Amino acid sequence: MDADIFGPSIPTLLNLRHHKATTTTQTNLIEPLINFNLKCMSIAFLTKSDGAIVWRGLMVMQAIERLLRQVAWSPLDYLIIDLPPGTGDIQLSIAQLVPLSGVIMVTTPQELSLIDVRKAIEMFRLVHVPILGIVENFSTYFCQKCGHEEKLFGENGGEILAKEFQLNILQSLPIDTHFRQACDQGRPIIKDSDSILCTKFTSLASQVVKLMITNKTTTTTE
Amino acid sequence: MDADIFGPSIPTLLNLRHHKATTTTQTNLIEPLINFNLKCMSIAFLTKSDGAIVWRGLMVMQAIERLLRQVAWSPLDYLIIDLPPGTGDIQLSIAQLVPLSGVIMVTTPQELSLIDVRKAIEMFRLVHVPILGIVENFSTYFCQKCGHEEKLFGENGGEILAKEFQLNILQSLPIDTHFRQACDQGRPIIKDSDSILCTKFTSLASQVVKLMITNKTTTTTE
Repeated sequence: MDADIFGPSIPTLLNLRHHKATTTTQTNLIEPLINFNLKCMSIAFLTKSDGAIVWRGLMVMQAIERLLRQVAWSPLDYLIIDLPPGTGDIQLSIAQLVPLSGVIMVTTPQELSLIDVRKAIEMFRLVHVPILGIVENFSTYFCQKCGHEEKLFGENGGEILAKEFQLNILQSLPIDTHFRQACDQGRPIIKDSDSILCTKFTSLASQVVKLMITNKTTTTTE
Repeated sequence: MDADIFGPSIPTLLNLRHHKATTTTQTNLIEPLINFNLKCMSIAFLTKSDGAIVWRGLMVMQAIERLLRQVAWSPLDYLIIDLPPGTGDIQLSIAQLVPLSGVIMVTTPQELSLIDVRKAIEMFRLVHVPILGIVENFSTYFCQKCGHEEKLFGENGGEILAKEFQLNILQSLPIDTHFRQACDQGRPIIKDSDSILCTKFTSLASQVVKLMITNKTTTTTE
């Protein structure tokens, strides 16, 4: 579920740009779109294409509730919600509308990014959402010609956060032009088994699944 | 003025982190903080440090109005407002609360970024704010060891937008680790006259000033 109302990326990432959603008359629910065996729903599937969404907070809340409750999600293994950056109405509404199993914090190593993620960690703790761990994006870059490594967006940002809040780093993702191209073209990197990014995302996914099982067991036995 | 309520960066960029604002009892206005001869105000100067801001839309609007109207800005040459990404309550409120002379659209060359900026351009046109031009950030990168150029975040994104909306590209800014460090440490790159980024920002500023004068003349003579 694409919860980024003002900058939805899921339609591009899943190669479903310019597609529109339909509603089943029987149930009056919106049918999720499906590509790569993934059901998805985005505000972009419900609005006129590429038009500016100029909505006030209340309308945004209603849109979020619609994406959560009026979509024929079932059956599902997991509902993954892609949140916009920050700690605004969208994040808060979701945390209050549905019981979240956990949240993954994504940051770049840069101090300017850490500042924002610190606030987000505090917000999710305030509303008792378990934080599964940290993903450090843009962690490093290797020159495609000479192999020289350059920490373009700073160093150790993920580690600093992890120590500060006693969290684990689930994954560090390097800058990778192929990955960037794949995103822009709507080809999930997970299909490209030769890519190091594929291995990293697969490992991230299995870690998250394990963490959710552990969390569930802990909660049940408490 | 830092209009990013959920992720204020100005205190870090101007080396004023952990500083707090005071209010003059005489006028009951908040005193802007000053560094590098720049007056500035951010929500971070008015709230407890590093705490999560968990605010609903209405409170955000009030905060924006407070930053605009209850700060002793005068006298000023220009009021530059740093907006968060997107087309939400903050952007809309500012466009409605004050007559903006113009807005600069910042994008990376990547398609995923262009999608969001297209929406923003349409929003500002909808509320009749002149768009001064486009700044392409992360436009390219040169390896610090071998000099190899790599378009890490895609190519020609700025140009594509410029053509699409008949706008000018005001500046293209490469990825630069020194600039990133300077930002994180609160040293304005403009102080480092050897840097190519310094030249680029100076040229950007003078272009913007010229554009605003031209726009003003056009409006007056109309």
